[in-house]
Amino acid sequence: MLEDLKKAVFEANLDLPKHGLVTFTWGNVSGIDRKSGLVVIKPSGVDYETMKVEDMVVVDLKTGETVEGDLNPSTDTPTHLELYRACPDIQGVVHTHSRNATSFAQAGMDIPALGTTGADYFYGAIPCTRKMTKQEIESEYELETGKVIVETFKKRNINMKDVPACVVYSHGPFVWGKSPANAVYNAVVLEEVAFMAYHALTLRPDLQPMQQDLLDKHYLRKHGANAYYGQIKKK
Amino acid sequence: MLEDLKKAVFEANLDLPKHGLVTFTWGNVSGIDRKSGLVVIKPSGVDYETMKVEDMVVVDLKTGETVEGDLNPSTDTPTHLELYRACPDIQGVVHTHSRNATSFAQAGMDIPALGTTGADYFYGAIPCTRKMTKQEIESEYELETGKVIVETFKKRNINMKDVPACVVYSHGPFVWGKSPANAVYNAVVLEEVAFMAYHALTLRPDLQPMQQDLLDKHYLRKHGANAYYGQIKKK
Amino acid sequence: MLEDLKKAVFEANLDLPKHGLVTFTWGNVSGIDRKSGLVVIKPSGVDYETMKVEDMVVVDLKTGETVEGDLNPSTDTPTHLELYRACPDIQGVVHTHSRNATSFAQAGMDIPALGTTGADYFYGAIPCTRKMTKQEIESEYELETGKVIVETFKKRNINMKDVPACVVYSHGPFVWGKSPANAVYNAVVLEEVAFMAYHALTLRPDLQPMQQDLLDKHYLRKHGANAYYGQIKKK
Amino acid sequence: MLEDLKKAVFEANLDLPKHGLVTFTWGNVSGIDRKSGLVVIKPSGVDYETMKVEDMVVVDLKTGETVEGDLNPSTDTPTHLELYRACPDIQGVVHTHSRNATSFAQAGMDIPALGTTGADYFYGAIPCTRKMTKQEIESEYELETGKVIVETFKKRNINMKDVPACVVYSHGPFVWGKSPANAVYNAVVLEEVAFMAYHALTLRPDLQPMQQDLLDKHYLRKHGANAYYGQIKKK
Repeated sequence: MLEDLKKAVFEANLDLPKHGLVTFTWGNVSGIDRKSGLVVIKPSGVDYETMKVEDMVVVDLKTGETVEGDLNPSTDTPTHLELYRACPDIQGVVHTHSRNATSFAQAGMDIPALGTTGADYFYGAIPCTRKMTKQEIESEYELETGKVIVETFKKRNINMKDVPACVVYSHGPFVWGKSPANAVYNAVVLEEVAFMAYHALTLRPDLQPMQQDLLDKHYLRKHGANAYYGQIKKK
Repeated sequence: MLEDLKKAVFEANLDLPKHGLVTFTWGNVSGIDRKSGLVVIKPSGVDYETMKVEDMVVVDLKTGETVEGDLNPSTDTPTHLELYRACPDIQGVVHTHSRNATSFAQAGMDIPALGTTGADYFYGAIPCTRKMTKQEIESEYELETGKVIVETFKKRNINMKDVPACVVYSHGPFVWGKSPANAVYNAVVLEEVAFMAYHALTLRPDLQPMQQDLLDKHYLRKHGANAYYGQIKKK
Repeated sequence: MLEDLKKAVFEANLDLPKHGLVTFTWGNVSGIDRKSGLVVIKPSGVDYETMKVEDMVVVDLKTGETVEGDLNPSTDTPTHLELYRACPDIQGVVHTHSRNATSFAQAGMDIPALGTTGADYFYGAIPCTRKMTKQEIESEYELETGKVIVETFKKRNINMKDVPACVVYSHGPFVWGKSPANAVYNAVVLEEVAFMAYHALTLRPDLQPMQQDLLDKHYLRKHGANAYYGQIKKK
Repeated sequence: MLEDLKKAVFEANLDLPKHGLVTFTWGNVSGIDRKSGLVVIKPSGVDYETMKVEDMVVVDLKTGETVEGDLNPSTDTPTHLELYRACPDIQGVVHTHSRNATSFAQAGMDIPALGTTGADYFYGAIPCTRKMTKQEIESEYELETGKVIVETFKKRNINMKDVPACVVYSHGPFVWGKSPANAVYNAVVLEEVAFMAYHALTLRPDLQPMQQDLLDKHYLRKHGANAYYGQIKKK
């Protein structure tokens, strides 16, 4: 069942320690098969070193129930599912506690758009959610975490496809993409961007976001009909 | 004598350089056998690269005397022993000079509870002790170091089991846990948490601690009767 | 065609990840053959791990047209070409998003001359360009990026040979040198210098540039007729 | 001639990149044979990767002339010699541009004594020299660099044996010890201490030096007649 997706999710999970994004088991990647409405995700609390492809857990997008797998799915599964439900364009979701992005989450601050490094992948600031309410925390916490991310994007009128990451207040980053591997790619970019934003902001605390013209240029040279970066065929 | 514990302590000591927590010989791990009242600890000033299981030293919890072993035990042994005496729930103790946690010790500051990364393991801020007195320093210094840690937890009414780490003023972290390996695990978490706290606090110097509700949620989803993280059986 | 130069450019590109200067494909090195007026450059968006010597692309210095190669040249090619046109003394150009140098670009700040570490290679501050105009960004952006670098050096009366690097506002560093390998060498120096400048400036925000006498001494002991560093024959 | 010392100096030089203290060829270690008055030092500008034991250069302590070796000695040789002349207790000298210590040199600041990590090896703050004069820079610069270090210790009444390091204003650290290997050891400690001091000072800019009592305790438990750290025989 979904062998290719399981392999893709498994390998994307192993890319997290490879890129220095996780300590111990503090991260998870999922992928979705939109046709069947099934999501493949890392099991909860299992070491990357001993984890196998067949440990991946299959859950139902709508109900969240485990459809296949002997292990419990990641406790963050309800967050992943909510993101898949909110944005049909994403096929992979990642959660980490990567050091620099999480520092912004702990500061409760957006990661502003300050340079082309981020602009190639994120069409604007990476938003920080509001604090969650006591009720949200005490009820279905992980589901509510997904909801507060989705709310943040709606309220600010940001398309989740254009800014594929969010930092949850006092928690850490959730990142997504066109595939499990692409979501991990974006998580690596996010960590670089957070490093640079920290340093630029502490060098110059009054720093303003980059010019909109430059943001447009860089994002659009890699995305959409007029993209011309890499080995894309020019028209 | 205590061969399993010696092996566990030996391996936990080797995990310190593996996780980047120590430079040279600047760290030590111990473990305790509560039944016999004996503590196994790293010898003083011995290189991790050449150290062997049989170099571990066995000392008596009450007297601090060496019971077995040709080498001197770590000079920090009296600190370890005091922590074991104060809290019967801990079976492993670690001391390091890990870079980020030690920076807080040198600043004489608590490491505040700012995010879920720490909240999964530390039920609140990691306290910094008061400065030690001239008399404490000049008498049984290492024993007094243990006493000032214990005093800090008592005065602030913190259970050592719930916050398994402390930074000693102008010195560095002592960390503990359910086993030698678990104490090292907590020492790694502490270093991550200190990195993030430094960055969050310098980004936003007026930053307040995280919400109590969120702290409760994260700590209690991994500890106690209602824990549901990892492959713990759900009820 | 230009096999030696292709090999030199290929190897210089591989030195970027080796020195930790690039994430993914975020960097490129070129080299020039001044006699034929041909430039060899990395293809756009190709992984360092799978890239081969024969993937290098040959372009014409004047027209920018691809003369040889199946792949698109780096999108930054017009920037490289403009730098070669402006300064006949340089034979290699590098672009990266290295973390510390890019942080200065995002802050829109020069990297000041603060110590001998940089003074051995950069005869003064590494300048940050002005912001580019909307028109520059929306027209031939990469060419205009080269032009704004050249303009910065002209306006400030700096010889590009003496300060072989520039940070482009909200973007990142371009670095050059006597060969592709030398340009990469300078890019490594730049990253070290940016690290130190960040830390020195945040320790002491009112810090002034180093003494001109010391800058002269260090730059001139490695460059020009009176150089005496390394295995250069003394007179 | 001096084969053991050459080997010791060669190996101590290789320890510099191993400990992450140098980029390219930016560091050098020397050792002295006090009986013959001869100093062995790294050749200038030679790569660590290709350097051989027989490349080490032997120079005369008094005259600075090369006594043996085909290569030029490090350009910093006159600085090393001046340190050996000033303090008969030191047998090894190291110069690096290690990142954190050099940041303090660039800021023109002492590295204050803030914790026991440094107190075990440095009996007080690591001093920063005054700026050198135009005349010192333009005459025998490297010799004058040594002289300004020696002057700094004299003026402040610090014994070079007790604080085996100095940062030269706008330049970087010089470190020494009982042997070439011990000098490298101290250079590693210095870099750790500089990292921690940077972070402690930026967390708490009004931070005062550590208590003298604690400094005494830690320095003296590793040095002098009452030392008891490591496998030293207790009395």
